[in-house]
Amino acid sequence: MAFDGLETPFGKVDRIEGGAATYASLSASFLADKIGVISVIGDDFSREMVNELRNRGIDLSGVEMVEGGKTFFWRGRYHNDLNTRDTLATELNVLGDFKPVVPQGWKSPRLLMLGNLSPSVQLSVLSQLENRPELIAADTMNFWMDIALEELKEVLKKIDLLFVNDEEARQLSGEYSLRKSARIIQGMGPRIVVIKKGEHGALLFDAERVTFCPALPLEEVFDPTGAGDSFAGGFMGSLAGREKINHSALRRALLFGTSIASFCVEQFGPQRLLSLTRDEIDQRRQEIAELMCAD
Amino acid sequence: MAFDGLETPFGKVDRIEGGAATYASLSASFLADKIGVISVIGDDFSREMVNELRNRGIDLSGVEMVEGGKTFFWRGRYHNDLNTRDTLATELNVLGDFKPVVPQGWKSPRLLMLGNLSPSVQLSVLSQLENRPELIAADTMNFWMDIALEELKEVLKKIDLLFVNDEEARQLSGEYSLRKSARIIQGMGPRIVVIKKGEHGALLFDAERVTFCPALPLEEVFDPTGAGDSFAGGFMGSLAGREKINHSALRRALLFGTSIASFCVEQFGPQRLLSLTRDEIDQRRQEIAELMCAD
Repeated sequence: MAFDGLETPFGKVDRIEGGAATYASLSASFLADKIGVISVIGDDFSREMVNELRNRGIDLSGVEMVEGGKTFFWRGRYHNDLNTRDTLATELNVLGDFKPVVPQGWKSPRLLMLGNLSPSVQLSVLSQLENRPELIAADTMNFWMDIALEELKEVLKKIDLLFVNDEEARQLSGEYSLRKSARIIQGMGPRIVVIKKGEHGALLFDAERVTFCPALPLEEVFDPTGAGDSFAGGFMGSLAGREKINHSALRRALLFGTSIASFCVEQFGPQRLLSLTRDEIDQRRQEIAELMCAD
Repeated sequence: MAFDGLETPFGKVDRIEGGAATYASLSASFLADKIGVISVIGDDFSREMVNELRNRGIDLSGVEMVEGGKTFFWRGRYHNDLNTRDTLATELNVLGDFKPVVPQGWKSPRLLMLGNLSPSVQLSVLSQLENRPELIAADTMNFWMDIALEELKEVLKKIDLLFVNDEEARQLSGEYSLRKSARIIQGMGPRIVVIKKGEHGALLFDAERVTFCPALPLEEVFDPTGAGDSFAGGFMGSLAGREKINHSALRRALLFGTSIASFCVEQFGPQRLLSLTRDEIDQRRQEIAELMCAD
């Protein structure tokens, strides 16, 4: 959970609530219940957002609030194409000493999503579990590949599904072809690899086959921040709603993740997610399915 | 019709047959007959390629051969991502004075594809027609937007379908959103806009709706040269095989164009197209259709 400062070609906000846990839990909450978040905030974090999350049934008892501490802050500027961005500032603040604690009663979740944090934090969460979840997913980024590759490889051995973007998949695998990349990453542990390509959609590689879901071509993209986390949250929320996590459940999750992410980018930060409805999500999922050119 | 000198991360060829007409006619020949090409070559152009085209039933009586002239030559180097390239040399040669002549008997074609040449050459072809084709398609590029925008706009008024890539669509429309771009371009004339996104697939905008076709994620891409022309050729060839050019015919064409383009990039220049079979095209079309994530 974080504050972000955002500059896009369409405007600027100095400080808005963000962070993977915020986006992902909000997104998942449209599709699943019994969502718990493990994170850390300072006492500066917005009470409005805490209330928004709680009102959606999201359990925040795994969120440590550090008295007198400051919430993680990131400031970035997106380029005109919105696909690339520069980091202008990163203030770790309370995240610097984050020791995640899995609350009692949460140690045997059915599904677990490890957000994009240091692999050692991800490993610490895994070590606290009592039973192995049916599916463990993780997100990561090139930063961790640069500075903590060996620990990241430990994480990969323990998970079922990895979310990465195309650039990250290429860096992690050392292969340009995404098909080869996915196979190499699958060899590192996760049997499912989801490669996010932003406005170009997402690819899912599982044991069975390759599946693609296009992003909806949008009239306006105001702010891509959180799109990947909303995608992952929607994806996991959709899985949580299925009895079996098979190929068909993964395909459905891909469509739901894509649908929710397409809303996220329409306004700054998580604002659009706050006004979103399940009907809108379903309607857009239908639009995305109809985009696809079947003969 | 041209010679190309190509450098990709995977290798280099000093001189290989190329040009939009070569790629597009080869690609269309798998799906249609009665294909005629209008172009110009020098007497240095390869007899082998001329024979290859003729053996596929492609009528070259519209190709002027300039005695003592040299064929158009382009040399380029692709960057590591294969999505961007630098032009290292362009020698117009016989193309500099090209005055296309539509042969007698070709003046009422059912379908016409105007390759990526100067808008004045494209207009000259249109002015020689006796009856309006059922569908006129054109390709263009940012170069013509820079130096001949007004003539290009004249072309746009007279055509039904424009092939452009995403960058070109943005330049032509002045809009970043491809959905807005397409609408603006439709307002300039063509009722159908096909936006090619290379490895990210293609979007088709017609009166009815937006349709997307992903590119097949490939193990190896050796050389992207000609992929867009193969796509357009396969697209037009597919249309030629349908009685009616309606939405369903356009969707089918999108899949065929994508299928053939995916082969083109597997080897340097047009080599892969020369060994390609209709069965392979159909099989890959099926693979691409199966990629798509319908719920």
